[in-house]
Amino acid sequence: MAKSPISSPLKDSDKKITANVLQSTLVDLIDLSLIAKQAHWNVVGTNFRSVHLQLDELVSTARTYTDSVAERANAIGVSPNGKASTVSESSGLSDYPDNWQDTKATVDAIVELLSELIGRIRKSIDETDKADLVTQDLLIEIAAELEKQHWMWQAQQQ
Amino acid sequence: MAKSPISSPLKDSDKKITANVLQSTLVDLIDLSLIAKQAHWNVVGTNFRSVHLQLDELVSTARTYTDSVAERANAIGVSPNGKASTVSESSGLSDYPDNWQDTKATVDAIVELLSELIGRIRKSIDETDKADLVTQDLLIEIAAELEKQHWMWQAQQQ
Amino acid sequence: MAKSPISSPLKDSDKKITANVLQSTLVDLIDLSLIAKQAHWNVVGTNFRSVHLQLDELVSTARTYTDSVAERANAIGVSPNGKASTVSESSGLSDYPDNWQDTKATVDAIVELLSELIGRIRKSIDETDKADLVTQDLLIEIAAELEKQHWMWQAQQQ
Amino acid sequence: MAKSPISSPLKDSDKKITANVLQSTLVDLIDLSLIAKQAHWNVVGTNFRSVHLQLDELVSTARTYTDSVAERANAIGVSPNGKASTVSESSGLSDYPDNWQDTKATVDAIVELLSELIGRIRKSIDETDKADLVTQDLLIEIAAELEKQHWMWQAQQQ
Amino acid sequence: MAKSPISSPLKDSDKKITANVLQSTLVDLIDLSLIAKQAHWNVVGTNFRSVHLQLDELVSTARTYTDSVAERANAIGVSPNGKASTVSESSGLSDYPDNWQDTKATVDAIVELLSELIGRIRKSIDETDKADLVTQDLLIEIAAELEKQHWMWQAQQQ
Amino acid sequence: MAKSPISSPLKDSDKKITANVLQSTLVDLIDLSLIAKQAHWNVVGTNFRSVHLQLDELVSTARTYTDSVAERANAIGVSPNGKASTVSESSGLSDYPDNWQDTKATVDAIVELLSELIGRIRKSIDETDKADLVTQDLLIEIAAELEKQHWMWQAQQQ
Amino acid sequence: MAKSPISSPLKDSDKKITANVLQSTLVDLIDLSLIAKQAHWNVVGTNFRSVHLQLDELVSTARTYTDSVAERANAIGVSPNGKASTVSESSGLSDYPDNWQDTKATVDAIVELLSELIGRIRKSIDETDKADLVTQDLLIEIAAELEKQHWMWQAQQQ
Amino acid sequence: MAKSPISSPLKDSDKKITANVLQSTLVDLIDLSLIAKQAHWNVVGTNFRSVHLQLDELVSTARTYTDSVAERANAIGVSPNGKASTVSESSGLSDYPDNWQDTKATVDAIVELLSELIGRIRKSIDETDKADLVTQDLLIEIAAELEKQHWMWQAQQQ
Amino acid sequence: MAKSPISSPLKDSDKKITANVLQSTLVDLIDLSLIAKQAHWNVVGTNFRSVHLQLDELVSTARTYTDSVAERANAIGVSPNGKASTVSESSGLSDYPDNWQDTKATVDAIVELLSELIGRIRKSIDETDKADLVTQDLLIEIAAELEKQHWMWQAQQQ
Amino acid sequence: MAKSPISSPLKDSDKKITANVLQSTLVDLIDLSLIAKQAHWNVVGTNFRSVHLQLDELVSTARTYTDSVAERANAIGVSPNGKASTVSESSGLSDYPDNWQDTKATVDAIVELLSELIGRIRKSIDETDKADLVTQDLLIEIAAELEKQHWMWQAQQQ
Amino acid sequence: MAKSPISSPLKDSDKKITANVLQSTLVDLIDLSLIAKQAHWNVVGTNFRSVHLQLDELVSTARTYTDSVAERANAIGVSPNGKASTVSESSGLSDYPDNWQDTKATVDAIVELLSELIGRIRKSIDETDKADLVTQDLLIEIAAELEKQHWMWQAQQQ
Amino acid sequence: MAKSPISSPLKDSDKKITANVLQSTLVDLIDLSLIAKQAHWNVVGTNFRSVHLQLDELVSTARTYTDSVAERANAIGVSPNGKASTVSESSGLSDYPDNWQDTKATVDAIVELLSELIGRIRKSIDETDKADLVTQDLLIEIAAELEKQHWMWQAQQQ
Repeated sequence: MAKSPISSPLKDSDKKITANVLQSTLVDLIDLSLIAKQAHWNVVGTNFRSVHLQLDELVSTARTYTDSVAERANAIGVSPNGKASTVSESSGLSDYPDNWQDTKATVDAIVELLSELIGRIRKSIDETDKADLVTQDLLIEIAAELEKQHWMWQAQQQ
Repeated sequence: MAKSPISSPLKDSDKKITANVLQSTLVDLIDLSLIAKQAHWNVVGTNFRSVHLQLDELVSTARTYTDSVAERANAIGVSPNGKASTVSESSGLSDYPDNWQDTKATVDAIVELLSELIGRIRKSIDETDKADLVTQDLLIEIAAELEKQHWMWQAQQQ
Repeated sequence: MAKSPISSPLKDSDKKITANVLQSTLVDLIDLSLIAKQAHWNVVGTNFRSVHLQLDELVSTARTYTDSVAERANAIGVSPNGKASTVSESSGLSDYPDNWQDTKATVDAIVELLSELIGRIRKSIDETDKADLVTQDLLIEIAAELEKQHWMWQAQQQ
Repeated sequence: MAKSPISSPLKDSDKKITANVLQSTLVDLIDLSLIAKQAHWNVVGTNFRSVHLQLDELVSTARTYTDSVAERANAIGVSPNGKASTVSESSGLSDYPDNWQDTKATVDAIVELLSELIGRIRKSIDETDKADLVTQDLLIEIAAELEKQHWMWQAQQQ
Repeated sequence: MAKSPISSPLKDSDKKITANVLQSTLVDLIDLSLIAKQAHWNVVGTNFRSVHLQLDELVSTARTYTDSVAERANAIGVSPNGKASTVSESSGLSDYPDNWQDTKATVDAIVELLSELIGRIRKSIDETDKADLVTQDLLIEIAAELEKQHWMWQAQQQ
Repeated sequence: MAKSPISSPLKDSDKKITANVLQSTLVDLIDLSLIAKQAHWNVVGTNFRSVHLQLDELVSTARTYTDSVAERANAIGVSPNGKASTVSESSGLSDYPDNWQDTKATVDAIVELLSELIGRIRKSIDETDKADLVTQDLLIEIAAELEKQHWMWQAQQQ
Repeated sequence: MAKSPISSPLKDSDKKITANVLQSTLVDLIDLSLIAKQAHWNVVGTNFRSVHLQLDELVSTARTYTDSVAERANAIGVSPNGKASTVSESSGLSDYPDNWQDTKATVDAIVELLSELIGRIRKSIDETDKADLVTQDLLIEIAAELEKQHWMWQAQQQ
Repeated sequence: MAKSPISSPLKDSDKKITANVLQSTLVDLIDLSLIAKQAHWNVVGTNFRSVHLQLDELVSTARTYTDSVAERANAIGVSPNGKASTVSESSGLSDYPDNWQDTKATVDAIVELLSELIGRIRKSIDETDKADLVTQDLLIEIAAELEKQHWMWQAQQQ
Repeated sequence: MAKSPISSPLKDSDKKITANVLQSTLVDLIDLSLIAKQAHWNVVGTNFRSVHLQLDELVSTARTYTDSVAERANAIGVSPNGKASTVSESSGLSDYPDNWQDTKATVDAIVELLSELIGRIRKSIDETDKADLVTQDLLIEIAAELEKQHWMWQAQQQ
Repeated sequence: MAKSPISSPLKDSDKKITANVLQSTLVDLIDLSLIAKQAHWNVVGTNFRSVHLQLDELVSTARTYTDSVAERANAIGVSPNGKASTVSESSGLSDYPDNWQDTKATVDAIVELLSELIGRIRKSIDETDKADLVTQDLLIEIAAELEKQHWMWQAQQQ
Repeated sequence: MAKSPISSPLKDSDKKITANVLQSTLVDLIDLSLIAKQAHWNVVGTNFRSVHLQLDELVSTARTYTDSVAERANAIGVSPNGKASTVSESSGLSDYPDNWQDTKATVDAIVELLSELIGRIRKSIDETDKADLVTQDLLIEIAAELEKQHWMWQAQQQ
Repeated sequence: MAKSPISSPLKDSDKKITANVLQSTLVDLIDLSLIAKQAHWNVVGTNFRSVHLQLDELVSTARTYTDSVAERANAIGVSPNGKASTVSESSGLSDYPDNWQDTKATVDAIVELLSELIGRIRKSIDETDKADLVTQDLLIEIAAELEKQHWMWQAQQQ
């Protein structure tokens, strides 16, 4: 399949910028969904049930936006890549520890991860301002949701 | 967290066998869910819509059993590991090609992947027959579902 | 279509045993669904409404397992056959009388039919123990449900 | 049970005509439901999934009207007969081939079967015009639905 | 309000015939709904629960068609009258006994009432054949449902 | 059926007082449901749709409490009587005019009817204070709902 | 596509009559759906909300029958045509004024449009009486619904 | 836990009276739920299905009010006790026979049990009239429901 | 609007007492809903999520009863007043601190507020005993729910 | 709690601008929700029911965005303040009259309030354009909904 | 109706630009909905069912945004015009062929139409950037959805 | 009722073994449901709400399997016994303390109880391996669910 089977509504330079933003966001969100599931399974401690449930909401958020971002890539004529090896090699998120983690360690790690991801997405919002308003609008929606959840995870650190 | 915080209903030798089976099945199923999503986004061709939808059902199946298997590991006192790097390094499934794939190539690749996975799970069913009937019952349920979907993917190859 | 378009996860001898069990169970269950509908339409007597409704639950059970059994046949690479002539010629169930039947005759006939069918399925559970654990698990599930309904039909005979 | 336990709103000659029409339609519809399930299980080929799903809608239609027709027979004081042997002996539909069928053969066979059945029901609509307007109205409803589905099956032959 | 505020799609003679049919059917159906509720509250005996529930389905049927018939009267420019005194004075149905009734007496009375009502509606179907096909179609639908329920009540008399 | 088949939790004098209250409330509520339907069908004028819908809510309220009251009569061992002739002869509500009514006349009539009914139920609440607290509690609930709807009908008179 | 890909259950002369009726009804109903939406958006005045909502129910009715009529055309082997230019050129309905309309003008216009359409459909019911009972039955259903809504719009004119 | 962790809105003497009433009602209702389940499983005879289903509604009622009563105890600062040994020792209900029971024996036993329980709750309503109106209101609600079901069980004895 | 547009079912002295009770309860409940929302947004600490969710249930309870109380005021012919300035000036509840609060402070404040409110409502129950049983019944229902939630908030203080 | 427990994704100057906008919008929306409820309870007049229902939709809109705005404040590390005294003191909306209001006065007041609020929010959209695109996007969504409802309220003034 | 009954939140020049954009988008979307329905009814060929279903999703999308755009026009004080003649005369979309079309021709035509429409909407996004951010946000949402569906239609061309 | 009214699909020795297993599991599960409810009502402490909710899920699990086990006893022709005295005398679970318990004590007690019960069920799985595969399959399902919940309760002990 030598050339793209899907035409793009963007001019080439805008398409290139937007494609990079979408591919890196896709990888980050898949990584977030895998890490949140890992944490969901491995958390232990007094607040276990509450944190366990909240982590599944984060998985659900990550999966929903993963789909939106990959579909947006297709919509601008770019093939998204979300395979395990791609995620493992190019994710912008920090590693998550192996084995069971107590609730405090879990909450701290999630707060840190969300902080990293929000920083990266805010940068992408700036980059797409000229390139593609439709993609920018999607990134703003993702930032709004992640910043809200970031507050709720921080609120538990007190 | 030096020792397991979760006690096991199994004796040590059975627990070890069962733990290995569950960890490798977990990794395979996460890989299947990522590959099926990758295929879902990248398929093109006359039957696009039908294959696109069927792939999402496969994603859903893979995710459901991923959870069941990881929870079963916890239930026998073993920490499950489903991070991107673990999947990338230890999955038993073949690689899936990058970029858009036409429907024929997509269907063929999925048939092949399911065939590999079914073979591995049937082997695990044998290994757990003495070690843990509860885990074996879960693996039988997974095999039943995957073999059914395998038929439906093969049926499209004719 | 000279050879099977669907590969089998079973070796040939196991496939042959399992195929026979599935085909004969399929025919019995379709016959049960038609007889239960026949009884549903033709029952008369004081308890009419209660028996009429309970017979539709039996139809629903029979139809659900008919589908599971036929799909399992496909999953092991065997074409299921559930046409009227096949059912008429090879069903293992006794005939059901023509015309309206009072509630006592209806209940007695259903109790007898379920007894026959349970006996045949228990035999099939034994036969598949070595051949295919996945099929055996399905047959155990069918036996569990039919034995439960058998109790409920017998309970009305007192 | 020597005489009918259910009185009839029709005079005897009208009841006789209507009874014949309802019994033969009942048998045809049961046969249709069994054949459509047979086709649903045995179809293979590129359009597998789409045809497989559409066949289940046909099964559902056939089952719904089977019930309406049998209940209408009771409502005019006639015992309906829908047993496997009755269907096998008196159905007005052509036989359906054994074994897996590719999608083209499947679609062609269903188009042909629906065409036969519509012809028979249109004839029954004429026969009940004097005998029973209530039964005629039911047959018109069945014809409307089958002719609609007939178009959708033909549309795939192009 | 001297003249009708609603115009009629029918010519005057057809409107008159149809108006009479609709008003008398309306009164009969309201009476049926009140009698079936009376029976629902006052039935006693071994089959109490089954008959009690079935009577509420009859109430529901009567209420639904009461609305359809009254709305049809409006649609042809005629004011429907369904007040208690009107029903009490002009209903075509036999009286229902006061006080608790055992299940046999209840079933017998309902069978008789439905038989009377069906006879009256079949006569109305004939009368509207020339006057208004739309109204006739509604009466056919009502007859179909009442004749079906009539069978189910008779089936309990055996 | 010479004596009551249902025993009473009340002593005879209390039962007698409560029975009278329940029978007269039952008749009033059935009459209300028939009048509200009559009004629902016959209202015309600028606010038609709004009043038409609100009247159906009143029908629904009347029907719900009709059932509660009749069931309460049974629960204290008294046979309820809700036939058309009983309602026509013993209802405490004023008559409702025949034929179409404009919205103003409709609203005024409903306000008046509700006012009458509330007065009668408040009197019944007093009468049951010693006789049966359970019945009184039901009457309080009915008064609460009717007084609320009374406000909403009056609010339209301004 | 030189000849019809869909066979017809009707003989040629009946098909021709029925085709004309269906095509003209299709166009009228699409026009009704566009006009009712236009009115829905442009109505102003004291009863705004009530009329605004009722207009959307009319849109919904028009769209539902548009689909039924177009599908019926296909079922008798005729291609339906519902494009904007076809509707603009061949609709049988009067024009609707541009710009905002007060509620009185809106109600009057809708009453008039429904009156025109009902007249045309009643004529089509007569024309299909010999040609196709199935199509006639659909037109009777459409007339029933439109005449009911016609009453409800007239009821607001008083 | 030496003193109550939950404050009471009642003064001490009222709290004591109310606590006794709630604890004894709690035990009676748990016993009722266990007996009704026992009867649900062990009933046999012609009306089996109807009685079997009705018993599950009684279980559901008993469980719902069990929760309401226990929560009310907490709300007035009293720890509820619903363990098996407590129920076994302090229930006010008669014993229920072991083994299968025919439908007549089952219905008679339930009628008797409900009669006992209603008597005890009516007495509690009197006792709480001065002590706590909120608790009294809950007991009135329970009496209303149990007296209604008592009628429905008696109605089957005729 | 010089005089009340809504008539009252109460005599003037009863109406006056009841009006005062309802207006002050209305204001308290609105204040509770605003404070619970304030707490919902501003809580931080280890149990954040659990307390955050439970506070929203309290908001929902407060809003539901706010509506019931205001509608009851209308039903007795009194205009309810629930504006911000009215609440700010006449609420009977203590002030809630500004800014984020940790979970302990939050729980303690809510327990205290509910305690105050329950005391006030219990006093209102006494005041309406002679004036209006319908209003008293509503206040009993509110007390029941608030005392239940009061227990659940206290249970967290241990 | 000396410093903010929640970190901000914004730099300090942007955070300050955004915080002011969010706090003032929060107060306005809470005030709107209380006023719309006040109007919902106190409206009287011919269109009562329609306006009463529409006001509850406005309450629901106001409450939904109240939550979104308060959560957004938290997400940028600012404590929201929505207590009654805060609303009473700092709301930007005009006062709403006490006592019952007729429908015209009610509609006029709501139109005026929405106009004021839309003006304030449009100003806030401009202020956040540089400060925080995520907050701006939320304000645009609120403006879109309020401007739509503003049209619907104005449409009733004609 | 000489002047606009709805005030505008925009200044005159911005209102004029935005009005033009909304009216032309409205017409395009109505045309799209009619064309997609036309294609839905007239498609034939092997993939019939899949394309038939996907076209109905496009109809649904077009109808949803038609409403959003017309309501936005009202919200800025402009009367929307969506009548058949307006659409026929001013739509920016190419014509769609009459008669049945095979699946390839259908897919190609839809891809082309969406491409045209996306181009026009992207231009409108630019034009509203200064004039009205609320309208621009709606257009961005429409572009996002249409570009996503455009990909899915192109994906079938391969 | 001298002999069993329900026939058994098992031979006598298998029936005896299976009956013992089912009766003792039934008693244990009823006891678990009562203890979990007792704990649900009596828990106090910081994590109150989370533990309170999780205990109700355990009640629900226990009740569901109670029904499955009792029905299975009937299906093999054995009368189940689940009365309070039977549970009190023969349960295999440890006693649960009276009065309120803090969250730590509650969690520890539940972990211990589940551990005991899992040990007993695993033993029963071994005992039924020869006697009845259908019963064994049910016990495996129960073990799977209890071991999963056991992990979740242990996870809170850390």
